[in-house]
Amino acid sequence: MPIVELTKRFRFEASHVLRNPDWDDEKNYEVFGKCARPNGHGHNYELFVTIRGEVNPDDGMLYELKQLKDLVNTHLIDKVDHFHLNHDVEFLDGIIPTAENLAIAFYEQLEHVLPDVLHEVRLLETENNWAAYRGEE
Amino acid sequence: MPIVELTKRFRFEASHVLRNPDWDDEKNYEVFGKCARPNGHGHNYELFVTIRGEVNPDDGMLYELKQLKDLVNTHLIDKVDHFHLNHDVEFLDGIIPTAENLAIAFYEQLEHVLPDVLHEVRLLETENNWAAYRGEE
Amino acid sequence: MPIVELTKRFRFEASHVLRNPDWDDEKNYEVFGKCARPNGHGHNYELFVTIRGEVNPDDGMLYELKQLKDLVNTHLIDKVDHFHLNHDVEFLDGIIPTAENLAIAFYEQLEHVLPDVLHEVRLLETENNWAAYRGEE
Amino acid sequence: MPIVELTKRFRFEASHVLRNPDWDDEKNYEVFGKCARPNGHGHNYELFVTIRGEVNPDDGMLYELKQLKDLVNTHLIDKVDHFHLNHDVEFLDGIIPTAENLAIAFYEQLEHVLPDVLHEVRLLETENNWAAYRGEE
Amino acid sequence: MPIVELTKRFRFEASHVLRNPDWDDEKNYEVFGKCARPNGHGHNYELFVTIRGEVNPDDGMLYELKQLKDLVNTHLIDKVDHFHLNHDVEFLDGIIPTAENLAIAFYEQLEHVLPDVLHEVRLLETENNWAAYRGEE
Amino acid sequence: MPIVELTKRFRFEASHVLRNPDWDDEKNYEVFGKCARPNGHGHNYELFVTIRGEVNPDDGMLYELKQLKDLVNTHLIDKVDHFHLNHDVEFLDGIIPTAENLAIAFYEQLEHVLPDVLHEVRLLETENNWAAYRGEE
Repeated sequence: MPIVELTKRFRFEASHVLRNPDWDDEKNYEVFGKCARPNGHGHNYELFVTIRGEVNPDDGMLYELKQLKDLVNTHLIDKVDHFHLNHDVEFLDGIIPTAENLAIAFYEQLEHVLPDVLHEVRLLETENNWAAYRGEE
Repeated sequence: MPIVELTKRFRFEASHVLRNPDWDDEKNYEVFGKCARPNGHGHNYELFVTIRGEVNPDDGMLYELKQLKDLVNTHLIDKVDHFHLNHDVEFLDGIIPTAENLAIAFYEQLEHVLPDVLHEVRLLETENNWAAYRGEE
Repeated sequence: MPIVELTKRFRFEASHVLRNPDWDDEKNYEVFGKCARPNGHGHNYELFVTIRGEVNPDDGMLYELKQLKDLVNTHLIDKVDHFHLNHDVEFLDGIIPTAENLAIAFYEQLEHVLPDVLHEVRLLETENNWAAYRGEE
Repeated sequence: MPIVELTKRFRFEASHVLRNPDWDDEKNYEVFGKCARPNGHGHNYELFVTIRGEVNPDDGMLYELKQLKDLVNTHLIDKVDHFHLNHDVEFLDGIIPTAENLAIAFYEQLEHVLPDVLHEVRLLETENNWAAYRGEE
Repeated sequence: MPIVELTKRFRFEASHVLRNPDWDDEKNYEVFGKCARPNGHGHNYELFVTIRGEVNPDDGMLYELKQLKDLVNTHLIDKVDHFHLNHDVEFLDGIIPTAENLAIAFYEQLEHVLPDVLHEVRLLETENNWAAYRGEE
Repeated sequence: MPIVELTKRFRFEASHVLRNPDWDDEKNYEVFGKCARPNGHGHNYELFVTIRGEVNPDDGMLYELKQLKDLVNTHLIDKVDHFHLNHDVEFLDGIIPTAENLAIAFYEQLEHVLPDVLHEVRLLETENNWAAYRGEE
């Protein structure tokens, strides 16, 4: 059976701040620049979830699209959309919410609900920066 | 002399929260939905500044592009980029930072530094929502 | 009170065919080219609805965004999304569904539910073609 | 010799309907939702064809771009553009035209005319959904 | 009869250099910055041609789309695409090819072939800069 | 430690011409079409630099973003932006500046300043054509 990849885009709007609590202000500004400003800033994040596997000959789909959408919304998007990623999201506790760390954390959230098929999580912070994670290789 | 319009795109990333301080939580959530969550969320804002006027025959420009860029950055973008629009921006004090109100406030910031030529400020909050203001008509 | 414009993007996917039933095949292909093929083709339409008016000082909004979204979805998008514009849409009966005609028909659908504030309907058929209508001037 | 990848975007507009003819209406709507509506809907499809191989030192190209464009247009785009994918396309006979199935079928169409170099076919149905196929692995 | 606007996007790739031949190098670099470098640079220009008028009830179109495309290609795009705007284009002789001046010159090229209906020419130099011209007002 | 990929977009505007100096005009036009016109044309190039490696637990980053930006600007973008790729760029001497050749040459420029982490260079010439190179495999 042919192996295909299917990617679905999701969007959410959130705020965050980049700071290492073990560092003083000077060090935080040196490393994170204006991303360290204490009241935070935000992004229109775009999340691309790619699954990979065989196509079901009955419906021509790798995964029922509506079910995929509901799973990702319930287990991920609803927990981060219109929230502050440093303060409001339990599974991000203690994590500096860079694009890299968010991609890893989101992958880990999804791999339990999309076992076998989850292939990649790609997170765009802006049109100029994004991170991708494909699990432990 | 022919009258042309010139538009320049600017980008900034900021956080905000939509709340009327005179209302209780219930009323705020009813009107603003998840935009009222107290820790705020954020956007990759896109700002389109349009100026309008005659072309200078010496340089073929309506306005020296570098000067336009510097003016808008100094008088507007540097004051909002990577800040919290409710807490960090003096000229937005007491304003509910909806796209509509931001477009008006940004226009008013710029009309003093771009007199005669400022034509329109257009602010995109997301790919699905934007507001435009062209001054008092 | 300042007058602002607010634009909201909507999307729908539909099929259509361009044919004048009073013409024979040859004439239809001459005028409409491959758009006249009888089994039809389709588009990812993008619809930009612009409203215009004063901002409400209580909530900083020209129109409650959720209400605007629900109105346009109920009175327009739900009637055309995933339908065949020539066969399935009552209010398009007898209309050749070009971008121009659709923009006019959509404006007329919306002006009854968005009286006073509806300013423009802009319909993108592809990234290369769109039509705009602002009512009778 | 260095191995590079070259991707070319193609566009076509087509209509389709998602239905398994062995299922009754109820089952079809349950699985495919509004995509099962019998008169069909359509998309502005974007197709990204990626080829992979060595660069020819004489012209600095992996493949003569004009020849690549003509081959893909003749053997693929001209057969699907402004057609109904369920009714008008011989090589799609009996295939439910999901993004996954189309990516596979398009790859198979192209691998005979682009032997050795064809690497991937990526098909965007909307800005939110796409499928990719790289042949049997 | 309702008045609609129809916009068609065109693309062309060209090179140019911004210099006033009456100025010395120092003055040219002061005004035009790196755009004054003598060997030139280039852009993927996007041109949006907007026409405005009544819809023809026979075909539902403001203008036959194929005819519009052919006219603009013949009278404008074919003269600038893959050319150097300072050296290769007769109708741009003696004009500093800024976005503003190009928008005006392109409008003047098109107003003779699209009399009565031509409404606006909008020229994007990059995703961050564009100029629009609507004729003498 | 998890391995992630981080991609940063850069932009530059340049002109080029595609010609093999060992061929006569006729052969050059046959192979390169209008890209062989002697005065050249240009593009808004987009460059996507992807690095790959472990996340630093102290700052949650694969690479300090500001440092990455400065390195790529200094060692690559500043050398090509607003220049003529055939005449003004030392490291492109003798290279026909196709997208394929540029991707390889840019990768080679960057692998010395981003050792161990550089993963891919992707160069978009237009929205319809791009080349990617990941080093010798």
